Amino acid sequence: MADPRFFTNAGPFALADLAARAGAELKNAADPQRSVADVAPLEVAGPEHLSFLDNKKYVDAFAASRAGACLVRPEFAEKAPAGMALLLTDDPYRAYAKVASSFYPLPPLTPGVAETASVHPSAVVGAGSQIDPGAVIGAGAEIGERCHIGANAVIGHGVKIGNDCRIGALSSIGFALIGERVYIHPGARIGQDGFGFAMGPQGHLTVPQLGRVVIHDDVEIGANTTIDRGAGPDTVIGVGCKIDKLVQIGHNVQLGRGCVLVSQVGISGSTKLGDFVVAAGQAGLTGHLQIGSGVKIGAQAGVMRDIPAGETVGGSPAVPITQWLRQSAELARLVRKKGR
Amino acid sequence: MADPRFFTNAGPFALADLAARAGAELKNAADPQRSVADVAPLEVAGPEHLSFLDNKKYVDAFAASRAGACLVRPEFAEKAPAGMALLLTDDPYRAYAKVASSFYPLPPLTPGVAETASVHPSAVVGAGSQIDPGAVIGAGAEIGERCHIGANAVIGHGVKIGNDCRIGALSSIGFALIGERVYIHPGARIGQDGFGFAMGPQGHLTVPQLGRVVIHDDVEIGANTTIDRGAGPDTVIGVGCKIDKLVQIGHNVQLGRGCVLVSQVGISGSTKLGDFVVAAGQAGLTGHLQIGSGVKIGAQAGVMRDIPAGETVGGSPAVPITQWLRQSAELARLVRKKGR
Amino acid sequence: MADPRFFTNAGPFALADLAARAGAELKNAADPQRSVADVAPLEVAGPEHLSFLDNKKYVDAFAASRAGACLVRPEFAEKAPAGMALLLTDDPYRAYAKVASSFYPLPPLTPGVAETASVHPSAVVGAGSQIDPGAVIGAGAEIGERCHIGANAVIGHGVKIGNDCRIGALSSIGFALIGERVYIHPGARIGQDGFGFAMGPQGHLTVPQLGRVVIHDDVEIGANTTIDRGAGPDTVIGVGCKIDKLVQIGHNVQLGRGCVLVSQVGISGSTKLGDFVVAAGQAGLTGHLQIGSGVKIGAQAGVMRDIPAGETVGGSPAVPITQWLRQSAELARLVRKKGR
Repeated sequence: MADPRFFTNAGPFALADLAARAGAELKNAADPQRSVADVAPLEVAGPEHLSFLDNKKYVDAFAASRAGACLVRPEFAEKAPAGMALLLTDDPYRAYAKVASSFYPLPPLTPGVAETASVHPSAVVGAGSQIDPGAVIGAGAEIGERCHIGANAVIGHGVKIGNDCRIGALSSIGFALIGERVYIHPGARIGQDGFGFAMGPQGHLTVPQLGRVVIHDDVEIGANTTIDRGAGPDTVIGVGCKIDKLVQIGHNVQLGRGCVLVSQVGISGSTKLGDFVVAAGQAGLTGHLQIGSGVKIGAQAGVMRDIPAGETVGGSPAVPITQWLRQSAELARLVRKKGR
Repeated sequence: MADPRFFTNAGPFALADLAARAGAELKNAADPQRSVADVAPLEVAGPEHLSFLDNKKYVDAFAASRAGACLVRPEFAEKAPAGMALLLTDDPYRAYAKVASSFYPLPPLTPGVAETASVHPSAVVGAGSQIDPGAVIGAGAEIGERCHIGANAVIGHGVKIGNDCRIGALSSIGFALIGERVYIHPGARIGQDGFGFAMGPQGHLTVPQLGRVVIHDDVEIGANTTIDRGAGPDTVIGVGCKIDKLVQIGHNVQLGRGCVLVSQVGISGSTKLGDFVVAAGQAGLTGHLQIGSGVKIGAQAGVMRDIPAGETVGGSPAVPITQWLRQSAELARLVRKKGR
Repeated sequence: MADPRFFTNAGPFALADLAARAGAELKNAADPQRSVADVAPLEVAGPEHLSFLDNKKYVDAFAASRAGACLVRPEFAEKAPAGMALLLTDDPYRAYAKVASSFYPLPPLTPGVAETASVHPSAVVGAGSQIDPGAVIGAGAEIGERCHIGANAVIGHGVKIGNDCRIGALSSIGFALIGERVYIHPGARIGQDGFGFAMGPQGHLTVPQLGRVVIHDDVEIGANTTIDRGAGPDTVIGVGCKIDKLVQIGHNVQLGRGCVLVSQVGISGSTKLGDFVVAAGQAGLTGHLQIGSGVKIGAQAGVMRDIPAGETVGGSPAVPITQWLRQSAELARLVRKKGR
């Protein structure tokens, strides 16, 4: 169903093939070799489409869907309309990601360096990489194999980028070591000076920022997000972190594995996050904090203290989420009681 | 009064001509053909200038002004100093916009493609359009007539842009269909992947984002703002919406007509706004909400529920604005009472 | 200790020379001419390194450090380990900034205009300036001496930039007059239209923005920050202001000398700040406010009123910081008392 103006469908695929790709068990399939043309949402899918049911809010749409096949948890199988082939799985959304990526894989690269790109003679570009028009690659930079450097992106001197990375148009990267399969979205800023000044009434003196940004494998960094290099230690983004748009990450910050930072989050200098921390939109963390693994931080929360592993917090200043919900309710009650 | 280093004054204009352009009624004008050289604020305007009074806070400045002419509501006419020509109108600010645009129209384009721009052979550029140095236009893109594509802007494959659009320097646009007279400011990011992952301890799997961004006529999108393309449905920006700087709009979000989003607002995925919704600076909206037409959202508000049409909300979590004001007052009172 | 891949060490320096550069008094130095190879943090420094103790939290690390020399306040001198040379000063962080800048000065420029840069024939570029690949400089622009214009940066027509400025890659500057030693980080947007519309149900009419941005000497502006030009008056950034990443500054805003705005702060149109105002991360200020000199604004604060000089505020809506802390505590107490 994706607009062919922008997307190229690699299908069709046989139903049994898709089930295998999804790691799902095929059920109610009259013909496992039947051809599936595309993925589509439940409401608009037809007999040639595969859909998915993840959120139980949509069970009615599932029961009424004309989709030829659907990824679904076993518990909802009995609600399926007659004639729908089922692909049973405990994680339909993850299975959908795999199927959709089969229909719409990343477009193939066109290796080579565009005429208007500027690659410094001392830079190295790996085999199979594509450098788009206007990209600028500095002295001594090393770009891995099968990388895509987007139009007008700027890669500073000495930067090292691993294999299979995608560097978005108009992004800038400096003072950074980047792993494999990293995806930097357009306009992201990686490696500029952290905000370090010796302040005083005679003027704020800039403190040289002598660290780097180290980005591990499988990280995504959103459009117009900014990640400052370390002041002396490095700024570190752990394996598999996913960072949304317009996020700010200060110098010396360290993220563990698999952290998720939603858009407009800000993390001040030297704060350290464990693994799989999630921060919702517009949350802010002050500097020099220790945030334990598995912590969840609510939208717009203002975190000003260390948080032990596994806790969920909300509010500004942030408190445990149940306390924050009670505080909000109590405040509303106080006003109601007064009849004002 | 604008610096001629940057702005070109298209005047002078006759007083009667300006009144006609503004849709205002001329009064107290000794000579309707008198020449007006420029617009200027009340405090600095001289006899050759036209000014305006919109906010009654400035009535004293109006009464003391040396401006030769002034746009003003009829009710303030009697406060005018002797000798000032009046242009009576019920909306002096809108009238000022028209007059100022007469003095300072958009500069004319210099049609053609700059030498260092890269336009893919399969792209189409309409008559009268100006493509600045370093701009990159991808395969199959269609640029309308009389468009201005700023320096180093990057337009992705297949993107369609209507007539009379202005695309700011260093902005990027992908997977998008754009109407007429749309103005994208520098550094805006349109059409990158939405933040869609099937999360899990074995790693967060990227979900292909298969929708587009559809931007209707007369929209403005501010500098460094980010608008993600849809995940399957489209992200839609309605006719005449005005979006300020550093705003984030997630995948599948839909804005109705004439919405106004002030800087640093964030709207999470799949939330839908009606017509003429206004969100003040730094407000945040979680995902999958329905916000009715005419809703007003206060600065820094955190909207976590649907809001019916016409309501005004504030606070985080957001509540009706009167309740929020009472809560803030009650909280202050509690602390005062305790003498702490 | 900085990675030689990215940084070039200008040392070694004699201990006595560094003490003189730091304005510190040398003590416990067996040999003032001893060679110091580099700066390093207390924990990792060896006999050839100079370190510093600024925060008393690190006194134990100081007492245990193997650093050959250390910048330190006189009061901590007695805690020094045997054999460590001391550089006594009342402001070790500022002294460290000077020493670190001696080891790692700004890299020298390579004057000239890159082949793929576009400099308008009517633009003037001062002696010793370096224009990187893809940079675009408009008609009538004036660039001072010894400036560095980063790759793919876009300087609009008429813009004036003083001597010794650094303009980051992919930044854009228009309608601006810029002083000396100004440092604009990558992706910053200076001088685009302010958010000015005559709103109404018949559509929001754009009001021409006829002012400029005036940036005084020694200012730093962070990556992806946006500063709008004035609507008629100018937007003004005073001498020595330091502005972090992703900050938004609206039209007609005026900052006095030495203001510090931490990342993601937003200041609405026409608000005026005195000298040395500090706003912490994600704080927001509404329009048309007067903020006195020396005011401190807490993280995420929402300032909606004028603030007298010297006050510290927090919360949203912002109140004096002590009141905000009491309010937060009182709210927590109310909930605890109810045992809910």
